[in-house]
Amino acid sequence: MNSNPTMRAALQTTVGDPDVLQVVDVPRPEPRPNEILVRVHAASLNPTDWKHRANGGFLGEPPFVLGWDLSGVVEAVGVGVARFRPGDEVIGMLSYPFGHGSHAEYVAAPARDFARKPASLDHVQAAALPLVSLTAWQALVENADVQPGQRVLVHAAAGGVGHVAVQIAKALGAYVIGTASGPKHDFLRELGVDEAIDYREVDFSEEVRDVDVVLDTIGRDTSTRSLRTLRSGGIVVSILPIGRPDFYEEADALGVRAVRMLVDSSRADLASITRLVDDGRLRPTIAETFPLEQIADAHRLGETGRTTGKIVVTMD
Amino acid sequence: MNSNPTMRAALQTTVGDPDVLQVVDVPRPEPRPNEILVRVHAASLNPTDWKHRANGGFLGEPPFVLGWDLSGVVEAVGVGVARFRPGDEVIGMLSYPFGHGSHAEYVAAPARDFARKPASLDHVQAAALPLVSLTAWQALVENADVQPGQRVLVHAAAGGVGHVAVQIAKALGAYVIGTASGPKHDFLRELGVDEAIDYREVDFSEEVRDVDVVLDTIGRDTSTRSLRTLRSGGIVVSILPIGRPDFYEEADALGVRAVRMLVDSSRADLASITRLVDDGRLRPTIAETFPLEQIADAHRLGETGRTTGKIVVTMD
Repeated sequence: MNSNPTMRAALQTTVGDPDVLQVVDVPRPEPRPNEILVRVHAASLNPTDWKHRANGGFLGEPPFVLGWDLSGVVEAVGVGVARFRPGDEVIGMLSYPFGHGSHAEYVAAPARDFARKPASLDHVQAAALPLVSLTAWQALVENADVQPGQRVLVHAAAGGVGHVAVQIAKALGAYVIGTASGPKHDFLRELGVDEAIDYREVDFSEEVRDVDVVLDTIGRDTSTRSLRTLRSGGIVVSILPIGRPDFYEEADALGVRAVRMLVDSSRADLASITRLVDDGRLRPTIAETFPLEQIADAHRLGETGRTTGKIVVTMD
Repeated sequence: MNSNPTMRAALQTTVGDPDVLQVVDVPRPEPRPNEILVRVHAASLNPTDWKHRANGGFLGEPPFVLGWDLSGVVEAVGVGVARFRPGDEVIGMLSYPFGHGSHAEYVAAPARDFARKPASLDHVQAAALPLVSLTAWQALVENADVQPGQRVLVHAAAGGVGHVAVQIAKALGAYVIGTASGPKHDFLRELGVDEAIDYREVDFSEEVRDVDVVLDTIGRDTSTRSLRTLRSGGIVVSILPIGRPDFYEEADALGVRAVRMLVDSSRADLASITRLVDDGRLRPTIAETFPLEQIADAHRLGETGRTTGKIVVTMD
């Protein structure tokens, strides 16, 4: 390491379309106390990336480097870190939403945001996991406490969070109903979905009943219509803004529960997820990979909303 | 709440002696996404507070508000927080070292830094727990993996970390040797210490042998001398700078392990600690309480190094 090390990073200095992403040299971070420096091998894209790129979102004004999850190798550890050593393969989700920055060759972040990489996955597959699997896990396990035999409705079941949520719900012993466009139904069945709904052909809120848990990755009108599918005491967990101030009152009136959650870093949850992966019960699907230098193309593909599984950028 | 709410906080604008602490009105923080706003009822002092007050330490230049742990009541939750509601009683340790600021009437911090307050403790007792018990837990359980019957040497066993570490080590089934000055030996025995060493009368490194685990809360020379007390394969966990660059080589040469750790926020660890408390196996000792307005006096008392148990400031 020379005295002023740099790295490549997808920096943006203004909000806007994918062209605002500039892959440039920036200073390489150094691990502070309780942090590790990770050489990023692969990092995934999530809808939150293109939303923040376009409007700043929780982050406010650029400049910033997006990217919340990653798979890589520990390069150095800061003072007080006893859990990892240089050379360890790790996955992690940086603290959401303010710990962004994985679309770069290195990240320095608190050691507690990381766990060992599942042995059965390469860096591209592993990078696809953290944000979506933590989201699905925290929605289904922590918030909804899914039990064997319960009916779970997963919206956008072929998407990033959706395809992982289906597998986690099945591993929990649930009966899983997934929504997707017709051409994706074969994929849903491969994931283990018990019932596939083509949201373009039918109104799910008319078709589906007696649901215990809805995982709502769409928000707005979908959240509201989901309430009608629930049994008394059922729960809808939304990971996006709901958009109607009377949503919670409506849930109360129907005798159901409604929760809006953001994903949160948790090495304990990552460890649970890794066990599912290494037990062969959870596998991410990769839609496409792009080298970091082509990250703008990766954003363009993501924004079509038509991919199946995850988009990953690689730094090797 | 008016439009520009303020709060009292122990602000310092320069490093120095306890007089630099000014209890003044500052803006009340607001919870960001994934954060909670907590009305602080009590917050403890730790040696890291007076060290940072005097030299800036990890935090660099003031202005800053010190304080890492607290007990209080959730006042408001940020976007995406589903785990807590206003009115919940919580304890927490802000992310160490950069999440400081509990010596104030309110803190806003990530929800994941908090857990439910043990039901059997009031706010003053509960505020004494987080930093010291997380330190002791992570040293003894995570790093040293203490097993029943092992010999554990706890330095400064009547101090903040020490008196909690003794109780945790006993709960883990260890044989506990504690060091303290003679007048504190009755207290050590009340805590459950099996063997008390007066470090002013004897050289512990000559007296103690075949130790499995040393919890070193002193650092420097004590770390080095602790190596000699270990059995082959034993471990010393130090929570302070060791001060000798050849320390790890010396440990290697002796066939023992040496780890330097910083405490890390963990709601899972806090939950384990809360279970010990509610099972009656762990109880903090309060040396003295001070109202926030007298925090300079609290620092002065702490710096004497002669207290037994914890110093707590109260905001009620």
